[in-house]
Formats: sequence, structure tokens, C-alpha cells
Amino acid sequence: MNMITKNEILNAFKFRHACKVFDKTKVIAKNDMEFILETARLSPSSFGFEPWYFVVVQNKELREKLKKGAWGATIKLDTASHFVLGLTMRDFFIKYDSPYIQYFMSQIQHLPEEAALNRRKIFKTFQKKDFDLNTERTLFDWASKQCYIAMANMMTAAAMIGIDSCPIEGFNKKTSEEVLQKYLDIDIKKYGLSYMLAFGYRLNPPKDKTRRQLNEIVGWKE
Amino acid sequence: MNMITKNEILNAFKFRHACKVFDKTKVIAKNDMEFILETARLSPSSFGFEPWYFVVVQNKELREKLKKGAWGATIKLDTASHFVLGLTMRDFFIKYDSPYIQYFMSQIQHLPEEAALNRRKIFKTFQKKDFDLNTERTLFDWASKQCYIAMANMMTAAAMIGIDSCPIEGFNKKTSEEVLQKYLDIDIKKYGLSYMLAFGYRLNPPKDKTRRQLNEIVGWKE
Repeated sequence: MNMITKNEILNAFKFRHACKVFDKTKVIAKNDMEFILETARLSPSSFGFEPWYFVVVQNKELREKLKKGAWGATIKLDTASHFVLGLTMRDFFIKYDSPYIQYFMSQIQHLPEEAALNRRKIFKTFQKKDFDLNTERTLFDWASKQCYIAMANMMTAAAMIGIDSCPIEGFNKKTSEEVLQKYLDIDIKKYGLSYMLAFGYRLNPPKDKTRRQLNEIVGWKE
Repeated sequence: MNMITKNEILNAFKFRHACKVFDKTKVIAKNDMEFILETARLSPSSFGFEPWYFVVVQNKELREKLKKGAWGATIKLDTASHFVLGLTMRDFFIKYDSPYIQYFMSQIQHLPEEAALNRRKIFKTFQKKDFDLNTERTLFDWASKQCYIAMANMMTAAAMIGIDSCPIEGFNKKTSEEVLQKYLDIDIKKYGLSYMLAFGYRLNPPKDKTRRQLNEIVGWKE
């Protein structure tokens, strides 16, 4: 551990930008793409429940279909080496009393029965009271937040090995989810589309990064 | 660029875990903490609008106050070297027609007037139609998702230099926000609390990481 320097890390953060056009002639090596997805897999999530699913869309016809309503994705669908859909579990999976949560605590987290029961109680209070996740929409948005953790890690990890990315919210959610249902065999009653995420190699140099200064976004209480 | 190996990166992802108890005797160096916050600053966000604010709470009395209703934070408030509140801008700032968005496009993103007008139009459609962000709650949750990107990057960057962290949703949102208003001078009509995030050095070895396998979370359309 501890062999990566702060400068190397910051260089990756400066290298990363929302890449508008990718070089179509450059393809990400399969093991690099698997490495990127592995950083999503190892990402943390609330209660550890991993409310995510990623679909890597390489098929050209499906990429064409995905253009419908996705005004921010069209050029990336045409030029990205790899194109990821970030799906988020809906209440079917992630409501406190769902079979998935039960399965997950027992089969993935290997919690003993009593510990699982306790955890479910805490999770119920968390959803119903602490975070007020009492509608399909608020529950989805909460799970979606976890998926943005995985998104961030994929982009950062990619940048560290010289791969560009573009996070995309430029789509009409309803239209895009209809496309997923109709052409990609995704049950949109169970999953919603949180984001699209394109990977590849830049064609052009990026514009300068614009950010507020650190003292504008951080306050200290000492 | 490209001097960090995949193995080094994956080691950091394996090193990172939700640290339950920190070693109270170990303090994060000021420049390491600033480095961590800098990775938040350089994080991407939807439309680049950075809807975040981070408060680093080092004052012991304020940490005591923060314990109220924050069942998942008490031990971390006692033992973490640095304790961050992840605040998210509410509609006051991030609704498409807010003065902040206007200011941001002109003063931070340096958009010419016409480009800013066009962008505002797109942003309006995005909020009102594409993503259906038509209530205070949905707008907040959308902005909050962006703040989870910054959270992920802070945790990953910290792990890469051997610093532990713990992301915390274990609090009653209403109670905690009342504490922020009352004792931390935070205007909760303008900011909401998305998460708490503790940093420090682990006291104990972590439990084994539990995750589904890659083929359970990724599908390919080729």
C-alpha cells in the first residue's frame, strides 16, 4: 500500500474530464474494461446492498436505439469504445422487506439469522423514518445515489490508467427506459436508469476545467 | 500520466472499508486532508454546477451535538481524525432559474451571455421534463447524487494514501439538520445534509469484504 503519490492521483483527477468525442479507432482492452468494472464492484453502498446493475452496450443496433431522447449521448454512442448503462434497483429489490434484501443478508453478507433480523429492523427504521424513503421515487433516488459512488470510482480508476470517460444525464428518463424495456430486455419495473457512462480515448484536447476554489466549497469548524 | 498500475489501484479499493473505529491517537496531516478535499473539488457534477458544500467538524462540542439522532456516527464522532458533513444545495441554489446558476455560468464557467441563455434553456428542460425534478425533494435528491460522486472520490483518494474512511447515512435527517441549523450556522433552507464522512486511521483490522461476483452485476450486449 501507500505507493501512489498524491501528485499522481491529482494528475488523474486533472486528466479526467467529460470527454465529448472519442477516437473511434481506439478500443479499450478487455482486461482494462474489466478492471474499471471491478472498481464499481468494490465500491461501497448504503448497508452494503449494492443496488446496481451495469449493462455494457457494444452492439451497434442497440446503440442506435439508445439515441432516442438521449440528446447528451448521441456522439458518445457513436464514438465510445465502451458504453455503460448505470441501472439502479427499484423498491422491488431494495425495500426493507424485499426478498432480495433477505437473500443478500443471508447469502452475500453471511449474517446469522438473528443479526439479519436486527439489521432489517434498523433498515426499516432508516427507510421509513430516518431518510423518509416512503415512495417509489424517493427509494429509487436513494438507491441511485449509491450508484453514483460506483460511477465516480469507475471514472477515477479509468483516468488513472489513461482512459477517458463521459458521465451522461442528458436523456429523457421515460423515453430511455422505454428503449431499455423494448430492446434490451430490461424490466424497468425492477430497474431504473440512473446514468449512462461512456469510455474510450479522447479525440481532442479538453477545455480548461472550471471549478470554484477550495475555500468556496469547504468550511472548517475548529 | 499512466504511472499508476491497476494492481496498485485495486489494492486501494481493497484497503478501503467502512472503518468502524478509528485510532484516536493518529491525526491526518493537514496537507493530506486538503488533498482529500481537493479530489472532491475536482469531481464532476451534472452540468458542472458543483451543488456541494463540505463542513469539516473538528470542534469537540459540535461533534457532541452532532451525535443527536446520528446512531451510525457516534463512535466515529469520538474517534475520527477528521469529520466531514456532505451538504447539498437545495432548489434555492440549483433550480434552473436561480441566481446561483446564473452566477455560476457567468463567473465560474465563463460562458458568454448567449451560450449561458442556451444552456439555461437546456437545463430547464432537463429539470422539468427529462428528469422530472419538479419538487423540492426530487431536486434535492438529484443534486445529492452529484455529492455522492465527490464522496466516492474522497474515500478512494484517501485509501490510496493509506487513510481510512467511513461513509455515514446512519442519522435521522430531520434531527441532524436541526442540529446543523442550531449549532453550526447552516441555513437548512438552502442546504440539506446528504451524508457524513469520517476520516482517520483504523484501530482494528477490517472484516472481509462481501460483494456479489462481477457476472452478477454486469451484463454485456455485444
